[in-house]
Amino acid sequence: MPELRKDPIVGRWVIISTERARRPHDFAPEEETVKGGFCPFDPGNEKVTPPEIIAYRQPGTLPDSEGWTLRVVANKFPALVIEGTLSKVGEGLYDKMNGIGAHEVIIETPHHEETLSTMPVDRFADVLRAYRDRIIDLSRDPRFRYILIFKNQGLSAGASLEHSHSQLIALPVIPEIASEELNGSKRYYSYRDRCVYCDIVRQELEAKVRVITENQDFLVCAPYAPRSPFEAWIIPKVHNAVYTELSESQFPSLAQIFSETLKRMDKALSKRPYNFMLHTSPLNENHQDYYHWHFEIVPKLTRIAGFEWGSGFYINPTPPEEAARFLREVNLEE
Amino acid sequence: MPELRKDPIVGRWVIISTERARRPHDFAPEEETVKGGFCPFDPGNEKVTPPEIIAYRQPGTLPDSEGWTLRVVANKFPALVIEGTLSKVGEGLYDKMNGIGAHEVIIETPHHEETLSTMPVDRFADVLRAYRDRIIDLSRDPRFRYILIFKNQGLSAGASLEHSHSQLIALPVIPEIASEELNGSKRYYSYRDRCVYCDIVRQELEAKVRVITENQDFLVCAPYAPRSPFEAWIIPKVHNAVYTELSESQFPSLAQIFSETLKRMDKALSKRPYNFMLHTSPLNENHQDYYHWHFEIVPKLTRIAGFEWGSGFYINPTPPEEAARFLREVNLEE
Repeated sequence: MPELRKDPIVGRWVIISTERARRPHDFAPEEETVKGGFCPFDPGNEKVTPPEIIAYRQPGTLPDSEGWTLRVVANKFPALVIEGTLSKVGEGLYDKMNGIGAHEVIIETPHHEETLSTMPVDRFADVLRAYRDRIIDLSRDPRFRYILIFKNQGLSAGASLEHSHSQLIALPVIPEIASEELNGSKRYYSYRDRCVYCDIVRQELEAKVRVITENQDFLVCAPYAPRSPFEAWIIPKVHNAVYTELSESQFPSLAQIFSETLKRMDKALSKRPYNFMLHTSPLNENHQDYYHWHFEIVPKLTRIAGFEWGSGFYINPTPPEEAARFLREVNLEE
Repeated sequence: MPELRKDPIVGRWVIISTERARRPHDFAPEEETVKGGFCPFDPGNEKVTPPEIIAYRQPGTLPDSEGWTLRVVANKFPALVIEGTLSKVGEGLYDKMNGIGAHEVIIETPHHEETLSTMPVDRFADVLRAYRDRIIDLSRDPRFRYILIFKNQGLSAGASLEHSHSQLIALPVIPEIASEELNGSKRYYSYRDRCVYCDIVRQELEAKVRVITENQDFLVCAPYAPRSPFEAWIIPKVHNAVYTELSESQFPSLAQIFSETLKRMDKALSKRPYNFMLHTSPLNENHQDYYHWHFEIVPKLTRIAGFEWGSGFYINPTPPEEAARFLREVNLEE
């Protein structure tokens, strides 16, 4: 069983895969690509994946057979495992717990070549609904405290399979990044009685220099202090701490702006790999007043090197005002 | 002038290069390698680099001419600039300061093909002395609060030039990683009245399962919760918070164990790229009781992807006990 281990100095958690330990020669050189060949996510190959947890499919079609437009399955090589009781132990000065969690794959499309930026917006909305549906279902499990939804698009962004998919990991602890955001936004709120994200939305809409696009419900902007060139955040304009509280009418709206943003990035950056992450409240905790869910999209254009490892600082060679201008000025009609 | 900008939620700083903004087409595809051709760090090309700040050279040879074994020069494309007064300003709810700092390159060897793991140990000791000498010199500048020394070895670890070199960045703020370590070790100390790193050294030497190698002065071990497979830390056995207080007799000892560790990694991991970072106390602050300087070496074997970006968690497929055993069992004589 995998282990969750805590760094005794900074408190950072890592997941250690203890079962299939990778030895030195198991690490493929960085540039090796996995393209073509058999795809376990293609229609017809449903029996190759673990059984589907949910699927959006044509009426009358059977689970784990063709006829779906979206499937969610357990990750065949999970970072954490779903079975077992959470057990926390010390090892001298160290702390660990067994690697209980859920690790699921959202197969976003039946079409091998399709991506989130090329699929129809109504099916993109289904992907966003699937995120909600899985969070709601897993939040009933009292062992889980946080659910992270993320996507790795392209090999150098960490995708090991070409077929478009996102992932979900349910964790028994609140991860560092979420804690930092919760603490930071709480601190801001306790001083100003306002949500920091709401203030960001207000300031960005006034200044206009970092706005990439917007619609009635959402603002897409380059953050003021982005870690990566062309980083973009999708923030709901109306305060809301929890992704699952998104109203049904907002899914098409979110899908529209998300799709447009990815199209702009694909065009400006020649379809370079990217990651995106859903930032939302921990499960069953009340951060309603000061937290504000959002998506962060991080194109893979720079490398994490010694300076970033050693400092936690990032060096960004493109000011967000420039990045936003480039993305804003992309002509999507051409 | 570059800017230091602070994320208003989590307080993370980023360096934004405002002068030579990189546009979409300026980002080379990930796999592009820079090999062969003209090398500005080779002997004979001294005039191509900025003038040397210090050099270890044969008696009677002139600055910025041949005859050196190590040179330190300003980075020709600095992330931060040395001239100017530190100025902190707000921009609505955001905070920034001008990008004042030092960015230097330590050219570790005159030989283009030599690396830290193949160079003679006495010259490796000189590299470690150069780190000390530069920190001491720059700590006189009251604008600087922290100096990070780091190395990117190999293209995918972020090295843009093949010729072996490390880098130094002096910062006007204490970076997040240093703060986290200082806070964490202070918290541990305030409860137990002991240094957490000293306790780690003690526990690791007793348990022996994560020890890679040791000598009289230093322990090299895989950390309990490593972010990367085959990560290794070099920790002085005797408590010391500040790298620059290393005694003269300890440099050969540190060079010996550091060289041996890199040789073991090169052999076990087929010379895969890596980063290392010196973790030491901030400048002119007293963290003497609870902090403990050390080096962290992180091989580049896995990718930072959506899960890591979104959680701050790392997934490590090799338990440190296995990694330590592999590195320990490398036969250096063969």
